[in-house]
Amino acid sequence: MDTFIEKLRRAGRANDSLLCVGLDPDPDLIPSGVALDVFNRSIIDATKDLVCAFKPNLAFYEQYGIEGLKALDSTMAAIPDEIPVIGDAKRGDLGNTAAAYAKALFETWEFDAATVNPYLGRDSIEPFLEYNWKGVFVLCRTSNPGSADLQSLNMLDNKGDTLPLYQRVALMADSLNSRANVGLVVGATQPQELKWVRERCPTMPLLIPGIGAQGGDVATTVRNGVDASGEMAVINSSRAITYASGGGDFAEAARAAAIRARDLMRDARPQTQM
Amino acid sequence: MDTFIEKLRRAGRANDSLLCVGLDPDPDLIPSGVALDVFNRSIIDATKDLVCAFKPNLAFYEQYGIEGLKALDSTMAAIPDEIPVIGDAKRGDLGNTAAAYAKALFETWEFDAATVNPYLGRDSIEPFLEYNWKGVFVLCRTSNPGSADLQSLNMLDNKGDTLPLYQRVALMADSLNSRANVGLVVGATQPQELKWVRERCPTMPLLIPGIGAQGGDVATTVRNGVDASGEMAVINSSRAITYASGGGDFAEAARAAAIRARDLMRDARPQTQM
Repeated sequence: MDTFIEKLRRAGRANDSLLCVGLDPDPDLIPSGVALDVFNRSIIDATKDLVCAFKPNLAFYEQYGIEGLKALDSTMAAIPDEIPVIGDAKRGDLGNTAAAYAKALFETWEFDAATVNPYLGRDSIEPFLEYNWKGVFVLCRTSNPGSADLQSLNMLDNKGDTLPLYQRVALMADSLNSRANVGLVVGATQPQELKWVRERCPTMPLLIPGIGAQGGDVATTVRNGVDASGEMAVINSSRAITYASGGGDFAEAARAAAIRARDLMRDARPQTQM
Repeated sequence: MDTFIEKLRRAGRANDSLLCVGLDPDPDLIPSGVALDVFNRSIIDATKDLVCAFKPNLAFYEQYGIEGLKALDSTMAAIPDEIPVIGDAKRGDLGNTAAAYAKALFETWEFDAATVNPYLGRDSIEPFLEYNWKGVFVLCRTSNPGSADLQSLNMLDNKGDTLPLYQRVALMADSLNSRANVGLVVGATQPQELKWVRERCPTMPLLIPGIGAQGGDVATTVRNGVDASGEMAVINSSRAITYASGGGDFAEAARAAAIRARDLMRDARPQTQM
């Protein structure tokens, strides 16, 4: 069985893509009369040869309770086996509770990777890492304006040096990476922070939200985010692709938007690579 | 309609209790042949006149996928209307995603309060706070050993003073409390931290896990955790009550354990209060 990293690399090479399409269904934006899971299936079919991963954010399904989770189930079934699926859940809890979340995401839902929140510390991440063939993306520097509230605060280390909290989180995640299954979430809205993280964690997969509407520049994101092989940057786009058109041509429009995004990312890759 | 705070105060006074019973079903500990929702219903019936709140942790339901959420649904239906229910979900996400989680917890599941993770900053908490009649418990200092990894780090403020991250989070939560619907999660395993938070946030409800197996002393927790009226400390106990017996007498054993815990907390309340 492929590990998440192997599956990610394989899909990224097959589709020559750093693009991850976020599957975050919003009924206000889906053409009327189209069911949520039907919408997702159409988006998947229209973009599956253009992506390195898909990323459903669980919030958009959970808001509809059990019906929403049935739509997630049907969405998961529509994704081809060879494309890795990142469960964007941002869970963080302690001990046996974290183990229950890891079971939910990796065994019950069968995500290939998941996002986790570091605030509760190492022992809240460890139960996810025990699934050594899965990927665990630790939130480091998120793409929202409020990310600075805590993540940019400077802390004093025990040598009297200062470093911002997100860097401390990156170092903690790096120290947990003995199974080579840890990644980090770093927003495209913070190019210097992304650059720092890539330099400090040269081989980790980085999940990068925040291009497009949130303001992250694609070419800069690619340059700062890829590893030495021009890979391992998983650059997410959700609404710019899934809602490229609000009409009946939404799937064709999504495909066109995904091609543009994929090509823009590909063209920005350093030339010596792949 | 009562706000969460009013409902919490009313239930706490009616049952003369600071005890919150955590509903975290673990099939390894539930007597064989007893379905998860039947088990929860029995626990609720056996303890509902002894508690100020119930607290299901969503992880324990999500690990069973859609079937688990059906059990959560049936659990919610078994809780009397007058007892507030805290959805322990520890969600944290950005903008419209946080809004979807808030909708899931407050509208779809109809929790009276929820726990949220502060790592993404103010704008990740705000969508929950807009439900001004609900309660929002921000994770501050959790009860697990790894909580020290980040929460105890000393952060520099802009005057060059240092304060630990959990205090910075408490101050941020306090600054978000214009609707009087913010609370904090502070573990009983950290008595000095709990004392600091209560002094700094004299009226907030505090959700306090970590007594019993995790090592927090009940009397110290009550003294450090209550407000000036001897209320607003929501002291959680899960396994020590729900699994007091692994046999067919689990409900009677849970009731006996809940009476002991409730009385221990009541006896530790400062005498001048209520």
